[in-house]
Formats: sequence, structure tokens, C-alpha cells
Amino acid sequence: MTPHQARRRFTGARVARLATADAAGRPHIVPVTFAVDGEVVYSAVDAKPKRGTALKRLANIAVNPAVAALVDHYTDDWNDLWWVRADGTGRVVDPEDPEGVRALALLADRYPLFAARGAVLAVDVHRWSGWAASAATGEG
Amino acid sequence: MTPHQARRRFTGARVARLATADAAGRPHIVPVTFAVDGEVVYSAVDAKPKRGTALKRLANIAVNPAVAALVDHYTDDWNDLWWVRADGTGRVVDPEDPEGVRALALLADRYPLFAARGAVLAVDVHRWSGWAASAATGEG
Repeated sequence: MTPHQARRRFTGARVARLATADAAGRPHIVPVTFAVDGEVVYSAVDAKPKRGTALKRLANIAVNPAVAALVDHYTDDWNDLWWVRADGTGRVVDPEDPEGVRALALLADRYPLFAARGAVLAVDVHRWSGWAASAATGEG
Repeated sequence: MTPHQARRRFTGARVARLATADAAGRPHIVPVTFAVDGEVVYSAVDAKPKRGTALKRLANIAVNPAVAALVDHYTDDWNDLWWVRADGTGRVVDPEDPEGVRALALLADRYPLFAARGAVLAVDVHRWSGWAASAATGEG
């Protein structure tokens, strides 16, 4: 799969999983709704943390900005499996900055129930990659 | 959500996402099919790596055994969102060891298309956790 194809599949998905790691390298992973704008993946972080989850994500990025985000498609017919990954660097964007305002508008466009109420997490993607069973077996 | 409830939801899912990190703390994330046996999550690793993906997972665990695995349920009705996570320690199991043989049998039972052809990755789970929108809003 080309980086362009991986980016396109990622962009069209409804949910991704975001992996960060703390200073000791212990990984953390959460599902996120998101919007892709160019080479940046945006997600919103609740101001009110759910049992530390939101804060953990931000705390990790503060000490270790490396981030990996995954979109995957599962079916018991393994000929239809695929996944795409965005590897990049995370940073926090003020929701009142122009970039934050734009990111929140993109999220609101994608998700009917979206209501901004906290920080915006931006991931500057350095690498889009992916794998599809159909391509791997020469079928697609 | 109680650890018992989180473990049960995790166990019933068809796909999880496995996050590891390298020695520098850079996270890596891949989808995995899996089987839960007690407090261990097993997945199989192809002997023949797909562009380094399988090796990356194992190389990370060799230098940094901390692992997080996630199962999540997404729907545009955010009242039905939930996720569960298993945090633990990864280790490689020889597929010919009794534990490896058992793990591969569990995987073959779960997945009709499963064909063992490599190492087994075991994650000894230290913590099951999770979140459900319905529970968070007091509806379930």
C-alpha cells in the first residue's frame, strides 16, 4: 500500500486508536475520533478527564511526543483485512488558536454528536503506512 | 466498569490493537487476533515478517516488555461507545512448548482461518480497565 493509499483509508475511517508512551516507555492506547487535515491528525481531549485517561495521553506527549495511530478493518474473512498507521509527533493545540478552531470545526463536521470542550491534540504525521490482505495476495 | 467486566468484553472481541514501544519509547501499534486464557492474552506472530512489522513487535518486547492492548466499540451513536484495555507484560512463547501448543489451539478454535506458522506472543495482564458511555451516563 502506498503512503497516499494509507492516508486515504485512514482519513475515511470513523475511529482510530492512539498510542503514546510515558517517559519510561510504557505504552498507552485509547480510541479516538479524529479528522485529518493535510498531514495532521486532530482529535479532541475532554477538559474533564475520565479517570485520568485524557490526562495520561497529554502527560505522555509532554514527556515523549512520539505517537502512533492505527485504523484497521477486521472481518472473519481474512482476505478482507487491512490496516493503516500514522506515525508522527504529538502536540497540544489551544482550542482558541486559529488551528484549534479549524480542527474543532473539522471534527464537528465529521461527527454529529461532537461538542468541543477541551484541548485539541494534533499529530504531525511523518509516515503513513499500511497493509491489506488483498494487496498482499495480489488480488487488489 | 469493573476489571471483571472489562476482561469479559475484551475476551469476546474478534480483534484487538497491540501497542508496544521501542527502547527510545517510540510507540508501535498493530491489530491482532487473539485468545484470552485466564490472565494471559495470546496472539500469533508470523514467522515471515510483513515488512518488518512482526519483527518490530518482538524487537520492542525484547527491549521493553510493557504492552497495552485495546478493544473498542465504535458507533456514531456515542451513547453506545465502549472500550476495554489490558495492560501487561509481553513475552515470546515457543510454539512447541506446552503453553504455546495450548495458545495456538485456542486461537485455532476462535478463528476458522487461523494457521499457526510462527511464534506466540503472550501478554501477562496486570490490569483490565475500561469505559462505557452508557455506564458513564448512568444508563447501564
